[in-house]
Amino acid sequence: MEGAASPPAGPRVLSAAVALSQVLGLAALAATGAWLGGYRGGLAWAGALRLNVHPLCMVLAMVFLQGDALLAFRVFRTEPKRSAKALHALLHGAALLVAIVGVAAVFEAHSAGGVAHAYSLHAWCGLAVLVLFTLQWLLGLGLFVFPGAGWALRGRYRPLHVFGGVALLALSVATSLLGITEMLLFHIRDTYSKFPAEGVLANTLGLLLVAFGLLVGYIVTREDWRRPPLPEELALSMDFKTLTEAESPGGSQ
Amino acid sequence: MEGAASPPAGPRVLSAAVALSQVLGLAALAATGAWLGGYRGGLAWAGALRLNVHPLCMVLAMVFLQGDALLAFRVFRTEPKRSAKALHALLHGAALLVAIVGVAAVFEAHSAGGVAHAYSLHAWCGLAVLVLFTLQWLLGLGLFVFPGAGWALRGRYRPLHVFGGVALLALSVATSLLGITEMLLFHIRDTYSKFPAEGVLANTLGLLLVAFGLLVGYIVTREDWRRPPLPEELALSMDFKTLTEAESPGGSQ
Repeated sequence: MEGAASPPAGPRVLSAAVALSQVLGLAALAATGAWLGGYRGGLAWAGALRLNVHPLCMVLAMVFLQGDALLAFRVFRTEPKRSAKALHALLHGAALLVAIVGVAAVFEAHSAGGVAHAYSLHAWCGLAVLVLFTLQWLLGLGLFVFPGAGWALRGRYRPLHVFGGVALLALSVATSLLGITEMLLFHIRDTYSKFPAEGVLANTLGLLLVAFGLLVGYIVTREDWRRPPLPEELALSMDFKTLTEAESPGGSQ
Repeated sequence: MEGAASPPAGPRVLSAAVALSQVLGLAALAATGAWLGGYRGGLAWAGALRLNVHPLCMVLAMVFLQGDALLAFRVFRTEPKRSAKALHALLHGAALLVAIVGVAAVFEAHSAGGVAHAYSLHAWCGLAVLVLFTLQWLLGLGLFVFPGAGWALRGRYRPLHVFGGVALLALSVATSLLGITEMLLFHIRDTYSKFPAEGVLANTLGLLLVAFGLLVGYIVTREDWRRPPLPEELALSMDFKTLTEAESPGGSQ
C-alpha cells in the first residue's frame, strides 16, 4: 500500500507550483485593484467609474477563476473524479457570471458616453473568447456532467475540450494585456514613455498575468502530473473500453 | 505492411490542417504588408519608415517562421527524425535572425526620434520572448543537435522544450496583438471607434494571427498526430531505455 500512485517527487513539486500560481494570481488581482484604486479613481457602478468595474471583473473571472478551474483536476487528483469535475464546472460557471457583469459594465459605460461598441482588437478578441467559453462550458456540461452522453462521444470530445480550455485561458490573458495597453494609451499616452509609476504598475500586472497563465498551462499539460485514475475508475473504464471496442471495426492491436 | 503507422484518417486531416495554417499565416503576412503599404507609408530603412520594418519582421519571424518550425515534426513525420530536427532548428535560426533585424529597426527608430526604449507592455513582453526564445534555441542546439548530451538529460529536457516552444509561440502572438493595438492607438486613436478601414484591417490581422497560433498549437499538441517513431528509431530507443533504466533505481514496472 505504501506510495500508491505517487510518481517520484511529482506531488511535492506540483504542490509548490500550484501554490506559486495562486500567489501570482492573487498578486495580479491586487495589482489590478491598486491600479484602479490608486490611479483611475476607484470603482463604482454609477458614472464614469463604471468602466473600472470591467478590468477587475475580467481579471478575476477570465484569468484567476478560469485558471483555477483548470487546476481543479490537478489539486484534487487523488479525490474521486466526480468532485474535481463538479468544482471545475462550478468555477467556470462563476467565471461566466462575473465575466457577464464585467462585459455589461463596459457596454453600459460606452452607451452612457456615446462611444461605439466593440470596435477595438481587444473587444473583438474578448467577444470571441466569451462566445467560445460559453460554448465550451455548455458542451462540457452536456457531455461530461449530465449523464446520457455515450462513452465514445465523451472520449472523442475530451481532447478538444482540454485543448480548448488551455487555449481559452491563453487567449483570455492575451485579451487582458490588450485591455491594459488600451487603458494606458487612452489615459497616459503622452507620458507612458517616461516610465511613470502607473505605467510600470500596469506593465507589471501584465507580466503577472502572463506568468500565471504560463504556470497554469504548464501544470495542466505536464504529462506525469496527470490525474492517475483511481482503481475503481480504471476497472470501469476497462469495462467500457471492452464494450466500445466491440463496436468499432478493427482497432489497433 | 499495409497501412503501417497510419492512424485512421489522421494524415489526411493533418494535411488539411497544415494547409489551412499556411493559408492563415500567409494571409497574416499579406495583411501586415497591406496595412503598412496602404496606411502607414510603406517600408524603408531610412527615416521615419524604419519603424514599419519592425511589424513585418516580427510577424514573419516570431509568428510565421516560429510556427512553421513547430510544424516541421508533423509535416515530415514519416521522414527520418534527423531531417525534421534540422529543418526545425534552421527555421528557428532564421526566425531569430529576422527578429533581430526587426528589433534593431525599432531601437534605431526610437533613438533617432528621441523616444525612450522599452517602456511599454508590448516591449516588455517582446524582450522577454526574445530572451527566452534565444535561450530555448541554444539549449535545443546544445542538447538535441550536437552529439554529447546524454539520453537521460535529453529525455528530461524534452517535455520542457516542447511546452516552451508552444508557450513562446502563444506569447509571440500576444505580443503582436499588443503591437497592433499600440500602433493603432498612436495613429488613429480618435477615429478608431468609427470603424475606419485601417482599424478593421488591423483587427482582422490580429484575428488571423490568433487563428494561426491556435491551429499550429492544436496540430502540434494533438496526441494521435504525434510523429510515430520509425522502426530503427524504436529499436535504438529501446536499447537506450534498457541502458538508462539500469541506472535508475526502481522505476515503475
